[in-house]
Amino acid sequence: MKVGVLGTGRVGKAVGTRLVQLGHEVVMGSRSGDNPEAAAWAEAGGERAGAGTFTDAASFGEIVVNATAGAGSMEALGQAGAENLRRKALIDISNALDFSQGMPPTLSVANPDSLGERIQRAFPEARVVKALNTVTAAVMVDPGVVPGGHTMFLAGDDAGAKAQTRDLLREFGWADDDLLDLGGIRAARGMEMYLPLWLSMMGALGTPTFNIRVQRGA
Amino acid sequence: MKVGVLGTGRVGKAVGTRLVQLGHEVVMGSRSGDNPEAAAWAEAGGERAGAGTFTDAASFGEIVVNATAGAGSMEALGQAGAENLRRKALIDISNALDFSQGMPPTLSVANPDSLGERIQRAFPEARVVKALNTVTAAVMVDPGVVPGGHTMFLAGDDAGAKAQTRDLLREFGWADDDLLDLGGIRAARGMEMYLPLWLSMMGALGTPTFNIRVQRGA
Repeated sequence: MKVGVLGTGRVGKAVGTRLVQLGHEVVMGSRSGDNPEAAAWAEAGGERAGAGTFTDAASFGEIVVNATAGAGSMEALGQAGAENLRRKALIDISNALDFSQGMPPTLSVANPDSLGERIQRAFPEARVVKALNTVTAAVMVDPGVVPGGHTMFLAGDDAGAKAQTRDLLREFGWADDDLLDLGGIRAARGMEMYLPLWLSMMGALGTPTFNIRVQRGA
Repeated sequence: MKVGVLGTGRVGKAVGTRLVQLGHEVVMGSRSGDNPEAAAWAEAGGERAGAGTFTDAASFGEIVVNATAGAGSMEALGQAGAENLRRKALIDISNALDFSQGMPPTLSVANPDSLGERIQRAFPEARVVKALNTVTAAVMVDPGVVPGGHTMFLAGDDAGAKAQTRDLLREFGWADDDLLDLGGIRAARGMEMYLPLWLSMMGALGTPTFNIRVQRGA
């Protein structure tokens, strides 16, 4: 499958590399199109890995992954272009972390809204699925680095796009039983507002390599 | 131990009842002092259970539990009186849920603040510990209703108050390994902002009887 990955940071590289390893073709998009990180990544990734602008990546992908930092996501998607996102599953991993008030970051978009909802409103013909934003990059693409089953949430309004996202998550190693569909894109709110707890847990545990497992009673 | 429980709803009753069963003495406090729910609870609870005003409950308790609805917590604690909270552990279970915009509720206090922090600022001589707000009442007082180990968070600035809270949680049935200390009261922010995710999970699972288990990688 052809996948456009927007963003050249840790998340974009981890997801792009894993997709290429799995046999997919990936174009990593950046603002300038000649981003040295993306060029180096594409060089190392072989013939299935390419680099270009946000527009190049989005027009290339049958699926598009938003791996940009939340503060820049709306602008990056605007550059990608609504016409290049139309009818495509747009897997949104972004978190609206605001580091301007120091550490730990706060959220620049939160209750009663979310970045996932904003993206869906701004690009109504894209099929936005919020996923993967609740774990660190290494866990996203290889859940086995955290022992035992643990949970990955999905939220989105389009059932077909969620099915495509589930397929990719299974390829990454997520067990079907560990995927928890929270319903429509409004549930992105909870998935994003979980970040302050995630950050506190990272501090308490001394590692970003963890996740939560939902355990149900009778 | 003498415990003042502020609030006569499901949380106040569940915590109060469990404390009485464990041999503690409890006064359940309400705004009016002659709340019929509190009177019926005290009647059924035997000689270790009493009812009174917020002031009565707070002055009685060596430990005070805030089990009021978040929207009324600041007023309830004001009635309880700063002098009756001084130097005491104040276990804050409240969530600032706002039902005015329909279901699911939003949060009336959130990023970059929390109800736990507000309470600590308003009552600087109380020793506020945020705990128990991340699970439904039945799980709070009997974690065994959700099979397997699962996590209870604590946050607060006072180590002694956190130790007292841990002792009570152990009496409720929480295993020491499942208590995760997130640090100072600022971490109440994450614990409270987790609620929208909790509400979405409750919808997806079809039950409030669940919890999350933190699983750590290498």
